[in-house]
Amino acid sequence: MMATNGKDACGINGDVPSVSSHCNNDSLVNKSHSAVVNGAGTEASSHSRLQNGGTGAERFTFSPEPTIEDIRRMQAEFTDERDWNQFHQPRNLLLAMVGEVGEVSELFQWRGEVAEGLPNWTECEREQLAQELSDVMIYLVELAEKCHVDLPQAVLRKMALNRLKYPASKVHGSAKKYTEYKD
Amino acid sequence: MMATNGKDACGINGDVPSVSSHCNNDSLVNKSHSAVVNGAGTEASSHSRLQNGGTGAERFTFSPEPTIEDIRRMQAEFTDERDWNQFHQPRNLLLAMVGEVGEVSELFQWRGEVAEGLPNWTECEREQLAQELSDVMIYLVELAEKCHVDLPQAVLRKMALNRLKYPASKVHGSAKKYTEYKD
Repeated sequence: MMATNGKDACGINGDVPSVSSHCNNDSLVNKSHSAVVNGAGTEASSHSRLQNGGTGAERFTFSPEPTIEDIRRMQAEFTDERDWNQFHQPRNLLLAMVGEVGEVSELFQWRGEVAEGLPNWTECEREQLAQELSDVMIYLVELAEKCHVDLPQAVLRKMALNRLKYPASKVHGSAKKYTEYKD
Repeated sequence: MMATNGKDACGINGDVPSVSSHCNNDSLVNKSHSAVVNGAGTEASSHSRLQNGGTGAERFTFSPEPTIEDIRRMQAEFTDERDWNQFHQPRNLLLAMVGEVGEVSELFQWRGEVAEGLPNWTECEREQLAQELSDVMIYLVELAEKCHVDLPQAVLRKMALNRLKYPASKVHGSAKKYTEYKD
């Protein structure tokens, strides 16, 4: 997609179908999405919220569902129904994910620093971001499936490894890479 | 990281700490990861499997846990414990995710086509891929959290929108983009 300054990202760019499909239609989709889950047992979107964390600070949380496996199953059904597995080899899925990461990047370019919670973003820009982050997630999940990587369990293993590589007592408040620390 | 041909990706490249931390240590991490979940209720890694799908074909599935919210919470704890929120602004997290996508790409470069299930990949290469895909997931989740995007519910909305944009009856077996179809 062409570079934009972020202000014309809601409908002008040729790769974005229209304001309505990115923003206005969303109310339609919101109303109907609980029927799309195929038994995943959705919670209302209002479930996500700012909660009191252990420190007393408010913390944004996600809805508990759908799970990563729910997303894998729904995307597999979507792909099967369209006979699209013939296109969804690992390298094609990787390139699709790279493309979506580029679309996320486009939403952040030319802006300068952006604070937590995106306080100056419009609702349309927020929904565009939600859609592009979702596209990254969908392709990441399908790529992992096609590579036979159990992504949820792989994340657990990687987080355990990160804890070993970056002990809290050693790296507190430092942005150095683990290879830069001296024992 | 420098370009590699994929065959020297297990320990030679300066950005990869050692074979052991990418491969051999993994057995240690595997054994201990159930203690890392902080109440998420893991299943054994053997849960992921090839299952009979509706067509009789075998289908790879994920473990049901951790959920996306479990990953968000664990990563938030990891970041808090290290006083790293000062570095984890949305644009920094986006760049971190871009970097990890690059590391996934590196594992696929110079290979030609790669079949589903990665039949010719070594166990070490598979585990490296699992780790890099996990890094993408971890940063994607933290980026969504810091942008106050309820990622699981956003994925549901995007999947509903994709069903509207690509009706199965219209796009069956075609790789065209939705803007290329004529009604």
